[in-house]
Amino acid sequence: MDGRVSASEFTADRSADPSADLSAPARLAAPTEGISLEEVALAARNHGLPLEALRYDLTPPGLHYVLVHYDIPAADPRTWELTVRGRVRTPLTLDMAALRSFPAVTQRVTMECAGNGRARLAPRPVSQPWLVEAVGTAEWTGVPLRTLLDRAGVEPDAVEAVFTGADHGIERGVEQDYQRSLPLADATGTDPEVLVAYEMNGAPLPPQHGCPLRLVVPGWYGMAHVKWLRKITLVDSPFTGFQQEVAYRYRREAEEPGEPVTRIAPRALMIPPGFPDFMSRTRVVRPGSVRLEGRAWSGRAPLTKIEVSTDDGHSWHDAALAPPEGHDWAWRYWQAPWTATPGRHVLSVRATDASGHTQPVTQPWNRGGFGNNLVQRISVWCLQDGLRDDD
Amino acid sequence: MDGRVSASEFTADRSADPSADLSAPARLAAPTEGISLEEVALAARNHGLPLEALRYDLTPPGLHYVLVHYDIPAADPRTWELTVRGRVRTPLTLDMAALRSFPAVTQRVTMECAGNGRARLAPRPVSQPWLVEAVGTAEWTGVPLRTLLDRAGVEPDAVEAVFTGADHGIERGVEQDYQRSLPLADATGTDPEVLVAYEMNGAPLPPQHGCPLRLVVPGWYGMAHVKWLRKITLVDSPFTGFQQEVAYRYRREAEEPGEPVTRIAPRALMIPPGFPDFMSRTRVVRPGSVRLEGRAWSGRAPLTKIEVSTDDGHSWHDAALAPPEGHDWAWRYWQAPWTATPGRHVLSVRATDASGHTQPVTQPWNRGGFGNNLVQRISVWCLQDGLRDDD
Repeated sequence: MDGRVSASEFTADRSADPSADLSAPARLAAPTEGISLEEVALAARNHGLPLEALRYDLTPPGLHYVLVHYDIPAADPRTWELTVRGRVRTPLTLDMAALRSFPAVTQRVTMECAGNGRARLAPRPVSQPWLVEAVGTAEWTGVPLRTLLDRAGVEPDAVEAVFTGADHGIERGVEQDYQRSLPLADATGTDPEVLVAYEMNGAPLPPQHGCPLRLVVPGWYGMAHVKWLRKITLVDSPFTGFQQEVAYRYRREAEEPGEPVTRIAPRALMIPPGFPDFMSRTRVVRPGSVRLEGRAWSGRAPLTKIEVSTDDGHSWHDAALAPPEGHDWAWRYWQAPWTATPGRHVLSVRATDASGHTQPVTQPWNRGGFGNNLVQRISVWCLQDGLRDDD
Repeated sequence: MDGRVSASEFTADRSADPSADLSAPARLAAPTEGISLEEVALAARNHGLPLEALRYDLTPPGLHYVLVHYDIPAADPRTWELTVRGRVRTPLTLDMAALRSFPAVTQRVTMECAGNGRARLAPRPVSQPWLVEAVGTAEWTGVPLRTLLDRAGVEPDAVEAVFTGADHGIERGVEQDYQRSLPLADATGTDPEVLVAYEMNGAPLPPQHGCPLRLVVPGWYGMAHVKWLRKITLVDSPFTGFQQEVAYRYRREAEEPGEPVTRIAPRALMIPPGFPDFMSRTRVVRPGSVRLEGRAWSGRAPLTKIEVSTDDGHSWHDAALAPPEGHDWAWRYWQAPWTATPGRHVLSVRATDASGHTQPVTQPWNRGGFGNNLVQRISVWCLQDGLRDDD
């Protein structure tokens, strides 16, 4: 049938072998290979923060980045139960009312996907194709994890807490519930304090953000903040599950064990100034004074410096950075003046934190495309007159 | 600098000419051309409905599809004003309190992007790369447009109402505020009844859905539902603005005038059964009874038939379609039983409406990639046993 979409619409190489057809190994795109429909299918489901939404201190839920590994579960808060099991003296089973009966804590936290920046890498790891926008900041309300662990009584031989979500799927040939662990010191720390959260910006969690219950691990990339949390298991040896030992490792070669992906590297983002072209997202500003502004964050150490460049990274100038105002794990506002002159400009911003890390201008490549905090580049035309106005 | 991302990161052909650099003409992708970073930048901002969210009668705002042409404006509801001008006896200026003082109407409406399905076309029009998911259903509350037009008193020579949003940008070389028109008969009709809406699912509009005010035109594709609505102008000759005469036309050749894109063609979507592979989104089900279910809609005429195929379109069987229950402009639930047997299957569903239109199995190609209601295809493996479970 002419024009009929073939069985190969979504994968180039179908076969009778379910494991090859279903769930191929991780791979890098060839140098000339454009982005595939599989990657676009992920990009159509998951989404980043439209960069103009950096204007909001707190990101509205539908603008906050979302990455869902499998499907959003059909969770019912009325029957939801969280269990705490394993190396504890008193196993717990807690429904939402029981969780809400503990004293609630609210924390403002910036969350970023570990894969943010992946699609800008060359060669490009084939996965969710983020550019720079996989971030958001919300106020999360819930029970401190350490309160629940205190109640359960952690045995002295426990070394990690394993968190199991209700989302179920296959990844690189491995069928699994989404699971991640934290070392006990991180799970029970007071700064950052890990939350078992049931509210986002004062409302029950939306489905895509883990309704009715999720983990919030301030300062860590998103993979640690297990959504649809249904089970916490204390274990006496390090967890070796897929998301811990296979995915979410910094590796240059496929076979090396790699280093675990943990805390968020420093990053600053600018609200693209002026107004955009629909397709290229290139910006237009008028000549004269333009305020450059945005947000910056690091999960590793307090920010110490924000710099902007208006000449594609040739020179850098300090921006003014707002104080953290008690929100140590949330982004901070920054601004810098700019006098725009006619012509094309490339704007960038970079963050430095107290650990001495500065965002790179050369890509920090790894096979998974994790932690790519390469500086943002915004292409701007400063034009004296408008283009033809339609009206 | 090795690895430095070059000035050509986002467009292949930079030049000193702002109009070429900023805003290139519309084009089709070459046969072997993958999806570009520009298209991915749009896909990272805009997003579709994760298909499992077809389970909700009303789509939560953060799961409802979003397409923003330019930037989400920084709108302040406290100072927002809507003006009604042009061929009216009494020009109006209405703040939000004034708009809320009119009797409110609530309507359940399914909205779909006119570009839904575009990325499945060959050749592919280069634009926002939707597959099948650019849809959502919400209850919109506001004032009927005809109430406002009655209040203003439309002059007898008015033929159309032009709607201007606050979003400003450039498209195909034309700087513009987003603007669309409706013929007066559509603007003042009672079924469908056009709304000037300020609430979505009982809450103020979220920023990305038009806060504080948008048009809702039941049965029409999304381009008609002007967001961040600030001006209604009654005109005595048909509006020829960019979004009316250049974009949103069904054309096979670039130079032909084409037909306007108006009402939503029939479509049914299935909730992908079982569970997915992360990267391919291919599904796994166990052998035995599986309920196939989803939603179907048409903006042209009532639905008359929903059919499913479990053999890649070779045979079709009727599904059970729920009644509209008073929501004539919203999707309807459908379901059909299936007995899954081991092996690979391709599931599809198609809708037929009372105008006699059935979703095609060959692509309805046009240069803009509009109204592509080609049937959905879901690749499913039915497996007796699981793949290796990590836990």
